[in-house]
Amino acid sequence: MAIEGSSSETREKRIRLGMVGGGSGAFIGAVHRMAARLDDHFELVAGALSSTPEKAKASGAELGLDPARSYSDFKEMAIREAKLKNGIEAVAIVTPNHVHYEAAREFLKRGIHVICDKPLTSTLSDARKLKKLADESDALFVLTHNYTGYPMVRQAREMIANGDIGAVRLVQMEYPQDWLTENIEQSGQKQAAWRTDPSKSGAGGSTGDIGTHAYNLGAFVSGLDLEELAADLDSFVEGRALDDNAHVMMRFKAKDGQRAKGMLWCSQVAPGHENGLMVRVYGTQGGLEWTQKDPNYLWYTPFGEPKRLITRGGAGSGPASARVSRIPSGHPEGYLEGFATIYTEAARAIYARRKGVAVDPAVIYPTIDDGMKGMVFVDACVQSSKRNGAWVKV
Amino acid sequence: MAIEGSSSETREKRIRLGMVGGGSGAFIGAVHRMAARLDDHFELVAGALSSTPEKAKASGAELGLDPARSYSDFKEMAIREAKLKNGIEAVAIVTPNHVHYEAAREFLKRGIHVICDKPLTSTLSDARKLKKLADESDALFVLTHNYTGYPMVRQAREMIANGDIGAVRLVQMEYPQDWLTENIEQSGQKQAAWRTDPSKSGAGGSTGDIGTHAYNLGAFVSGLDLEELAADLDSFVEGRALDDNAHVMMRFKAKDGQRAKGMLWCSQVAPGHENGLMVRVYGTQGGLEWTQKDPNYLWYTPFGEPKRLITRGGAGSGPASARVSRIPSGHPEGYLEGFATIYTEAARAIYARRKGVAVDPAVIYPTIDDGMKGMVFVDACVQSSKRNGAWVKV
Amino acid sequence: MAIEGSSSETREKRIRLGMVGGGSGAFIGAVHRMAARLDDHFELVAGALSSTPEKAKASGAELGLDPARSYSDFKEMAIREAKLKNGIEAVAIVTPNHVHYEAAREFLKRGIHVICDKPLTSTLSDARKLKKLADESDALFVLTHNYTGYPMVRQAREMIANGDIGAVRLVQMEYPQDWLTENIEQSGQKQAAWRTDPSKSGAGGSTGDIGTHAYNLGAFVSGLDLEELAADLDSFVEGRALDDNAHVMMRFKAKDGQRAKGMLWCSQVAPGHENGLMVRVYGTQGGLEWTQKDPNYLWYTPFGEPKRLITRGGAGSGPASARVSRIPSGHPEGYLEGFATIYTEAARAIYARRKGVAVDPAVIYPTIDDGMKGMVFVDACVQSSKRNGAWVKV
Amino acid sequence: MAIEGSSSETREKRIRLGMVGGGSGAFIGAVHRMAARLDDHFELVAGALSSTPEKAKASGAELGLDPARSYSDFKEMAIREAKLKNGIEAVAIVTPNHVHYEAAREFLKRGIHVICDKPLTSTLSDARKLKKLADESDALFVLTHNYTGYPMVRQAREMIANGDIGAVRLVQMEYPQDWLTENIEQSGQKQAAWRTDPSKSGAGGSTGDIGTHAYNLGAFVSGLDLEELAADLDSFVEGRALDDNAHVMMRFKAKDGQRAKGMLWCSQVAPGHENGLMVRVYGTQGGLEWTQKDPNYLWYTPFGEPKRLITRGGAGSGPASARVSRIPSGHPEGYLEGFATIYTEAARAIYARRKGVAVDPAVIYPTIDDGMKGMVFVDACVQSSKRNGAWVKV
Repeated sequence: MAIEGSSSETREKRIRLGMVGGGSGAFIGAVHRMAARLDDHFELVAGALSSTPEKAKASGAELGLDPARSYSDFKEMAIREAKLKNGIEAVAIVTPNHVHYEAAREFLKRGIHVICDKPLTSTLSDARKLKKLADESDALFVLTHNYTGYPMVRQAREMIANGDIGAVRLVQMEYPQDWLTENIEQSGQKQAAWRTDPSKSGAGGSTGDIGTHAYNLGAFVSGLDLEELAADLDSFVEGRALDDNAHVMMRFKAKDGQRAKGMLWCSQVAPGHENGLMVRVYGTQGGLEWTQKDPNYLWYTPFGEPKRLITRGGAGSGPASARVSRIPSGHPEGYLEGFATIYTEAARAIYARRKGVAVDPAVIYPTIDDGMKGMVFVDACVQSSKRNGAWVKV
Repeated sequence: MAIEGSSSETREKRIRLGMVGGGSGAFIGAVHRMAARLDDHFELVAGALSSTPEKAKASGAELGLDPARSYSDFKEMAIREAKLKNGIEAVAIVTPNHVHYEAAREFLKRGIHVICDKPLTSTLSDARKLKKLADESDALFVLTHNYTGYPMVRQAREMIANGDIGAVRLVQMEYPQDWLTENIEQSGQKQAAWRTDPSKSGAGGSTGDIGTHAYNLGAFVSGLDLEELAADLDSFVEGRALDDNAHVMMRFKAKDGQRAKGMLWCSQVAPGHENGLMVRVYGTQGGLEWTQKDPNYLWYTPFGEPKRLITRGGAGSGPASARVSRIPSGHPEGYLEGFATIYTEAARAIYARRKGVAVDPAVIYPTIDDGMKGMVFVDACVQSSKRNGAWVKV
Repeated sequence: MAIEGSSSETREKRIRLGMVGGGSGAFIGAVHRMAARLDDHFELVAGALSSTPEKAKASGAELGLDPARSYSDFKEMAIREAKLKNGIEAVAIVTPNHVHYEAAREFLKRGIHVICDKPLTSTLSDARKLKKLADESDALFVLTHNYTGYPMVRQAREMIANGDIGAVRLVQMEYPQDWLTENIEQSGQKQAAWRTDPSKSGAGGSTGDIGTHAYNLGAFVSGLDLEELAADLDSFVEGRALDDNAHVMMRFKAKDGQRAKGMLWCSQVAPGHENGLMVRVYGTQGGLEWTQKDPNYLWYTPFGEPKRLITRGGAGSGPASARVSRIPSGHPEGYLEGFATIYTEAARAIYARRKGVAVDPAVIYPTIDDGMKGMVFVDACVQSSKRNGAWVKV
Repeated sequence: MAIEGSSSETREKRIRLGMVGGGSGAFIGAVHRMAARLDDHFELVAGALSSTPEKAKASGAELGLDPARSYSDFKEMAIREAKLKNGIEAVAIVTPNHVHYEAAREFLKRGIHVICDKPLTSTLSDARKLKKLADESDALFVLTHNYTGYPMVRQAREMIANGDIGAVRLVQMEYPQDWLTENIEQSGQKQAAWRTDPSKSGAGGSTGDIGTHAYNLGAFVSGLDLEELAADLDSFVEGRALDDNAHVMMRFKAKDGQRAKGMLWCSQVAPGHENGLMVRVYGTQGGLEWTQKDPNYLWYTPFGEPKRLITRGGAGSGPASARVSRIPSGHPEGYLEGFATIYTEAARAIYARRKGVAVDPAVIYPTIDDGMKGMVFVDACVQSSKRNGAWVKV
């Protein structure tokens, strides 16, 4: 229960935030705004909410933005806000994937921190350019792999790092959904349309949209680095240009002499699954299981003992989950809280920058490097599948 | 997905909010603030966060309040804010129970809307006085029986009202916890200390703290009115002045010719339960089950058909849950979101008052009358138990 | 994995078994036969399977009985089998309740062991007479409260006896079903017809049929004796003569200075429940939960530690469950196996009688005394309900 | 509720059964005996229970076999029983894998029906020879892929065949266990020792022991034929000669124009899993999920509708599960019941043979062809893994 800006931490002045994308009707823009607001570290003061001027203007008005700071062009916003005395300190980029690179570039090069939706970009080449820019910039780059903000995901990571399951041998990841079981992209569903369009989404369909989440989560929790993968991608729905199902076998780099393997399944055509993200990790001395549907639970089996149900804030949960929890055990936290944690961790890093001090090492958020790994993962999946499932090094 | 102030509804100017109680370290104060913030309808601008001047001041500073509007006395706050041009429009009262009445009185009589934590007051006599005041005041009185804000609780209520389970015969409620299994109130746990002290908590222990929630939920979902109850209360922990376990049998008023009965169990000494609030309702044509641990699920069995799992935002869920949902299905919403819904519903009612128009009938929040019912329930439990479980009319 | 007659125990000659009731189409007769067969301790050699001679004959032929030992009258069977050199040693009584007493009498007084379905009889007066007979007889009387045969029920009992949850404070029992939600007894459903007929079933409907099971289970697991109860019975279905729902509050006799209370809910009108038998026991140091739907699991929470899932045969399970298990962990055992355990425990007692040695104290089966307790429970429920829920001593 | 020999079917004379293997202490031998006994279609009359004469003799005595029919050599048993007037009609082979072929051969060539444990043999070459023999023999060959006997597995197969989920796209199978997480084979655990010994178990470790079950189940339920697979096998435990974990990607033959894919994970080193066999099948119009831990449940989602829980014997379950069920819904059936169903289905086929009539097409049991498929699967896994996960046609 340490997360609210108003409680255990010194109160800082709110961070002035801008947003690119996220105009009326966009799902993920509203999510970012609620996430930014929950712990009270950010104040939305500017936006390029749409590239259509009228829509940008209307959306800005809806959100109560000063009309002078409601832009229809993100570059213009970057230029002008950088010059303002109280211009934005950070920007949230919540556009479709193909816009991420260009938008991020404009802010990074002006020293404005970037909080960017995943996947990093739509192409690997854009990703590499963005990585270079981010590495050279003084500004922070935060990628909203939001599932890493769930307290029990942090708990799992901490337990594995502590050796509670011994050396990791297996990481089994899955993220099945069912919303693309039928060809809704051709009947005008907007979310489906851009996600199945290679020019907007990139080379990966399910792999890019949700496979990256599953892979990021497996790597985050296990602490392992992927070495190579073999993938079999498919587009089950007639006429779909991008994969809607992927089967992936993985080999991780050995750690402390223990080699590890994994499987990943992501699908958008698995009826009965809304967002069935799950990660299961097995080691020489125990196993852990977590699923996004019931995010306040972590199943832990020390080998040879009964399975235990560790709950958020409950007995057996440790400091890593406590520092990203807001309320006592037995009161479920959900998706927005996990998402808000990414924003709050970003805020802590930004506060440290303001003061010119080092960021508390306990602060964790997904970085440009995590984003690059996701892009490389998607690329490797696509390459492997084209070569009939050959192993591809990452 | 209709709840964010910025989306489907016309943007209103944020409501100026004050808070009584909720200084540093108080759990429920922080919850109220996050709930008020999530959907962006409120702005905290004043507070009497503690009755200890130094603590009030420090807490106000932590929250970034204007020092001039950080009070150590709620009456002073009521008087001064009522005179300010941009004084608070609403106040959140988050003190221990015995302060509710006096605090609410000062604001109600000055036309400031009150959002009050439950139970209503610590005594039935205070409750009756408060009811009179609230009825006479132009200001709104909102009680944060927050569990009624969960989307699937709304869904259950809607389905029962629609006749999906036929005429209701049975309402089984329970709210077991385990945190008072041992005598922690005597070892300085602050939350435990006031909750087990009759002078602060009132006549009911578990009945007041959690039994009222379970009863409120059963009544809310079923649409039934309690007629009489028989209760057997106990204080299992040596030296505890208030009940820590209650067994209650209930008879509801017949509705459409169908009589209905129920049971309620609340306990603070049931190891293994964090907040095991559950309500199950059975009718002539089906049954419904909901539990707070997994709040995005509602189990529905049309009699003679397979059990169905209705999920928040998923197939089978209707408009009553959709209007209090923020994100698509498969992404869990939790306790804070449900709590925020009470604030947002209150905001909608306050906006209507601002404009002098009628409140949309879809808006639902717990009222002074729900609070009275809870007080009467606690009183009846205590009376019945004293009379060895005799039936007591309510 | 110690139960099969062929494994760890010395092989004994099979016990010659007769059966009263259980002709074609009877559900519970077939269950008793499978239960008797599973562990190979019994051999069915005679039967009075029906009181209708033709049906008795046909049913005997179907089961491969020697026609000379297929009777239409249980008294005749008792008389003749008692005289045969290899006559039956034990008889299974699987008739409707009102026949139990007279049938059992004929066998008990001839020294033939009785394995009788529950509840004990249809009237308390019959039960008292039967108790007297059983106490005076050299033959064993075994009541098939089959749920006590589930390994994890034995596990729970053992853990409580071992003090794993400290002193017991609460026993919460429930047994909801939905099959009598509508008036199927008047449309010719045979199982429903006799169970809702006071002349065949006795004074209790749901209380007798399933409430006795729940109460027996609560007492078996907790090791507590009931002192008094307050009940509110109802017949929700128009025209039904017996209760189809019961709400019961209970007070147990103090044990080791700790008083304990409980609730029991049984219902035949709760849509969504097939056989929702569940028992939850809470003590000063922990809690246990078991449900018949998932009988291979026992949930155990040592107070202040994470909840643990103990599985049949898995880590944390002890000798009491192991001795009534047949197969390794991870392979579910079900209802028939639990039922078979009652038969196998009976066989062990009968083997000891054959040899004139004492029965191994580890052997547990429900006795005439458990049956009496069930009858007293039903009677007390009915009496209490008639007196508007007054407490009735048992 | 149609399965007991004594109920809806004409009573047949019990089938005389012999057993090879299954002496004292063997787990699977006792399982086969209980399975054979439950529905009363078999009578165990002869055995070659061990190849050690003393042990064979002692085991026979324990089981009450006529000493003259307790053999220490299966070939001798086959020869002599084939000559007896009332010699065995069928034999159960429950030895380690490498004995299956030779034992089965002796009985098949003498016209004695064989009920054989899985996998079929220890080598593919033995399997081919056995297949030839079985095809030429008049006797039946039944393989105890027992999981196909679970009622809800039959239900799933029936629903898919009926088109309830449309055309199948995905079959996801897994069978994780944890019992070989450590090197118990070297510390004398007998079950572990032969299962990890290539000379007794064959080329596959986890693939042969449990992977075959998972694959058989996926094929059984989906009705699909495997076309090719790519596998990555591992022996995580130091010094283990056979695989203890396998990741497999699969492509099935197109059916009705719809191609399908799958994944299979089997593991013996996944702490927290006892017997986590699970199969999930997704089609163009719905999805189904079944797990062995909770075998009486089948989860069914018609695309676009709420998930439904179909229970054994409950609403929504059909004739295919009803004909292999013994007791009403709400009373769990378990592993032994499913196993017994294989025996009972075999009995029905043997009865038909006795009478020279065709077997009822509703009768289903795993055959030599299913056994061959399992052997080919293991071989393909091993070959693919040796070739670094190349696709191997089956």
